[in-house]
Amino acid sequence: MEKVIVRLKKYSYPIIITSGLFNNLEVFKSLVCGDQVMIVTNDCISKLYLDILKTQLIKFGVKVDQIILPDGEKYKSLETLERVIYALLINNHGRDTVVIALGGGVIGDLAGFAASVYQRGIRFIQIPTTLLSQVDASIGGKTAVNHVLGKNMIGTFYQPSSVIIDIDCLKTLPEREFSAGLAEIIKYAIIFDSCFFNWLEDNLEELFLLKYKAISYCIRRCCELKSDVVVADEYERNDKRVLLNFGHTYGHAIEAYTGYDGSWLHGEAVSAGMMMAICSAIILKIFNKKDAVKVKKLLLRARLPIFGPKNMDKKDYLFYMMKDKKNISNKMRLVLPVSLGEAKIFSDITDDLILSSIQNCRSLFLF
Amino acid sequence: MEKVIVRLKKYSYPIIITSGLFNNLEVFKSLVCGDQVMIVTNDCISKLYLDILKTQLIKFGVKVDQIILPDGEKYKSLETLERVIYALLINNHGRDTVVIALGGGVIGDLAGFAASVYQRGIRFIQIPTTLLSQVDASIGGKTAVNHVLGKNMIGTFYQPSSVIIDIDCLKTLPEREFSAGLAEIIKYAIIFDSCFFNWLEDNLEELFLLKYKAISYCIRRCCELKSDVVVADEYERNDKRVLLNFGHTYGHAIEAYTGYDGSWLHGEAVSAGMMMAICSAIILKIFNKKDAVKVKKLLLRARLPIFGPKNMDKKDYLFYMMKDKKNISNKMRLVLPVSLGEAKIFSDITDDLILSSIQNCRSLFLF
Ligand SMILES: NC(=O)c1ccc[n+]([C@@H]2O[C@H](COP(=O)([O-])OP(=O)(O)OC[C@H]3O[C@@H](n4cnc5c(N)ncnc54)[C@H](O)[C@@H]3O)[C@@H](O)[C@H]2O)c1
Ligand SMILES: NC(=O)c1ccc[n+]([C@@H]2O[C@H](COP(=O)([O-])OP(=O)(O)OC[C@H]3O[C@@H](n4cnc5c(N)ncnc54)[C@H](O)[C@@H]3O)[C@@H](O)[C@H]2O)c1
Ligand SMILES: [Zn+2]
Ligand SMILES: [Zn+2]
Repeated sequence: MEKVIVRLKKYSYPIIITSGLFNNLEVFKSLVCGDQVMIVTNDCISKLYLDILKTQLIKFGVKVDQIILPDGEKYKSLETLERVIYALLINNHGRDTVVIALGGGVIGDLAGFAASVYQRGIRFIQIPTTLLSQVDASIGGKTAVNHVLGKNMIGTFYQPSSVIIDIDCLKTLPEREFSAGLAEIIKYAIIFDSCFFNWLEDNLEELFLLKYKAISYCIRRCCELKSDVVVADEYERNDKRVLLNFGHTYGHAIEAYTGYDGSWLHGEAVSAGMMMAICSAIILKIFNKKDAVKVKKLLLRARLPIFGPKNMDKKDYLFYMMKDKKNISNKMRLVLPVSLGEAKIFSDITDDLILSSIQNCRSLFLF
Repeated sequence: MEKVIVRLKKYSYPIIITSGLFNNLEVFKSLVCGDQVMIVTNDCISKLYLDILKTQLIKFGVKVDQIILPDGEKYKSLETLERVIYALLINNHGRDTVVIALGGGVIGDLAGFAASVYQRGIRFIQIPTTLLSQVDASIGGKTAVNHVLGKNMIGTFYQPSSVIIDIDCLKTLPEREFSAGLAEIIKYAIIFDSCFFNWLEDNLEELFLLKYKAISYCIRRCCELKSDVVVADEYERNDKRVLLNFGHTYGHAIEAYTGYDGSWLHGEAVSAGMMMAICSAIILKIFNKKDAVKVKKLLLRARLPIFGPKNMDKKDYLFYMMKDKKNISNKMRLVLPVSLGEAKIFSDITDDLILSSIQNCRSLFLF
C-alpha cells in the first residue's frame, strides 16, 4: 500500500494506492459504523465492482444506497446532477451523509460536483477506476459538469475526504483507455520530472503488464506531482496549475472539433496536442529536436496518436483554440516545454506560430 | 454612507449602506474600466432599477450584459441556473467576469450560486433590493436553488466581493415585503442584542417612514450582527450560525404546509414561528412571559402575524419539522430564547413539547 498525503492549507487528506481493495477494510477508516453513503456509479462499472464494494461497506456497518447512471461523457450534465440530488433527497440523506464516486473521471467529476452542492457540501470519497482518473481526475478537487456550449463550464473546487485507488480495477479497463491514461502520465514527466521520464522509458512494458511494483510507483509519482501543484495553487489563481494544461490547448481543439463523439479520447487528443506544443517550442527554438524524438517514441510505444485528425485543418485549430476558456481576455497563452522535465507559460502567442506548428508537425516528425 | 467589513479568514469584503447609490460611483470601485459584468435581475426589478444601474456602469467603462428572469421563488431552480449559465456562455464571459445580483433574496441566492459554479467561480457583487435581503440574505455567503423535494437543497458557501445596499430601493418595496424584512430584524434583536430590541421599540415608526438615519442604523446593526456570526462559523460547522434559525423550524413547517404559494411570506412564517418557539421556552420555564408579551407587541406593530395558519393542525407542524434538514440524524433541535438578547440551542426536544407549544400558543397570547 502506498500513500500520498495532500496537505492543503485548511486540511489534509490521503490518497491510498493499493490492490485487493475490496478485501482491505482499513482504507475505509474515514467511515464509521452507522454512516450513510450514496454510491454514484455507471452501468458499466456497476456490473464489475458495485456488489463487492457494497458487501464490504455493509459488513462495516454502513447504510448503503446507490445510483447507477448511464455510461458516457454526455451524461456529465446538469440533468444527471439533478438525478443524483433526487436520489439523495428521496432516500433521506442528511448533511452528514457521504457520496462515494465509483468510476472514471466522468463519474468522479459529476459525483464530486453533486457532493459539493448537496445541502451546500457533504463528505465525498473518490474510488477512481480508470488509469486517467487515478493519476489525474480524482486528484486536485476540480469537479464539473458540461454545458452544451462548453465542457466543464459548471463546477466547483471541492476536495474529497479521501481518494482510494485500487490497481486491480485496471485489469478490466479497455486497452485504449489505459493508453489514454498513459498520455497524462507522460505529460507529468515532460513538464516536471526528467528522471520519471527516463523511468517511463525503461518500465513502459511493466506498466502494460500491470506489474504491481511498477504501476503503483507510477501512480504514486503522478499523485505526488499533481498534489504538489494543487497545494501550491488550489484555486487555479496563480500560474502553477496552468502548467498542467501542457498539450491541452491543442488537444481541446481536437476534442471540440470531433465533437466529443468518442472517436478521440481526451488522452489521445492530449498526446497529439503535446506533439503540436513541442513543435511550437521547436519553432521558437526553446526545445531541442532530440528530446522531441524521445517524446514521440515514448508516445508511440504507449500506443498513442502523435498527429491530430487527418481532415482537421489548421484554421479549425485556431478557431477552437481562441474559444478555449483558459485564454483570459482573448490573449493566447501556451504551455511549452523548455527541456525534458520543465515547462513554462508563454503569452502573446501569435496565430502564425499556431498555424505553422500544425503545418509543420507532420513533416517534422515523419521520420 | 455606512460600512461594515466582513473579516473572513481568507479575505475581507465590504457591505456598503448608502442612498442615491446610482449617483455614487465610488461604491463600484471594486470594478475597473474594461471589466465585463452580467446583471442578473427579474422582470419586476428591471423596470425600476436596471436602466439607471446600467447607465452608471457604462459611464464607468464597464461592458454590461443582462439577464432578466421571471419573478418568483419558483424560479430559484436548476432550470433557471441553466439559463444564467447559458447567458454567460453565449455572451463570451470569461473567468474574469463579474455577476451582479440586482434584486431580493431569490435573485441573490440564484445569481450567487451561478457565480460560484460558472467556470468554478467568478466574482460576484450583491445589490439587495428588499429589506430582507439587505439585512439577511445578501450577507453570509449562502447561495442556493430549490429542488422539488426541498427548499435550498442545492447550493454553495460563496462570498461576494462586495454588498451594496441602497436604502432608496425600499421606497418601491410592497409594504408586506417590508414587514417580512422586519421579522428577521426583530429576530436578531431577540437572539443577540437587547439594546437593539429596545431601540426597535422606540424607532419602528421611523423605519416605516424610511427615515435615513433610522433605517441605515438598523440595517448596519443587522449586518454587523450577522457578519459576526458568519465570521465565527463560515460553513455552518459549529453551532454559532444555527442560532440564526430561531423561529425558522416552526416557520419552515408553515411555509412547507402552505406550499410556498405566496400566501405566507418567509418573514411572516418566521414571525409566527418565533412566537411558537417563545411558547416552547415558556413551557420549559426558560423565558419569562413579560418579555414574550413585549415581542408579541413589537411583531404586531411591525404588521406581522403572531399565529400560524388557522387550518394547520399541530400534527402538520410535527410532520414538516421532522423533515427539516437542520435536524441532523432525526434528533429534533430547537433554538430557544433564554432572555431578550440571548438564545441557545436545545436538543432532545420531545414531540410533546412541540405539540403543546402549538396547542397553547393561541391561548397564551390571546390577551
Ligand atoms: N477533475 C479533473 O481534474 C479532471 C482531470 C482530467 C479529466 N477529467 C474528466 O475526466 C473525464 C474522463 O475520465 P476517464 O478518462 O476516466 O473517462 P470515463 O470516466 O468516461 O471512463 C472511460 C470508460 O471506461 C469505463 N470504465 C471505467 N473504469 C473501468 C474499469 N475499471 N473497467 C472497465 N471499464 C471501466 C467507463 O465506464 C467508461 O466507459 C472527462 O470528463 C474529463 O473532463 C477531470
Ligand atoms: N442566502 C441566505 O442567507 C438567505 C437568507 C434568507 C433568505 N434567503 C432567501 O431569500 C429569498 C427571499 O428573499 P426576499 O424576501 O428578498 O424575496 P424576493 O427576492 O422574492 O423579493 C420579494 C418581492 O419583491 C420584489 N422586489 C424586490 N425588490 C424590490 C423593490 N426594491 N421594489 C419593489 N419590488 C421589489 C421582488 O421582485 C419580489 O416580487 C428566499 O428564496 C430565501 O430562501 C436567503
Ligand atoms: Zn487532461
Ligand atoms: Zn430567514
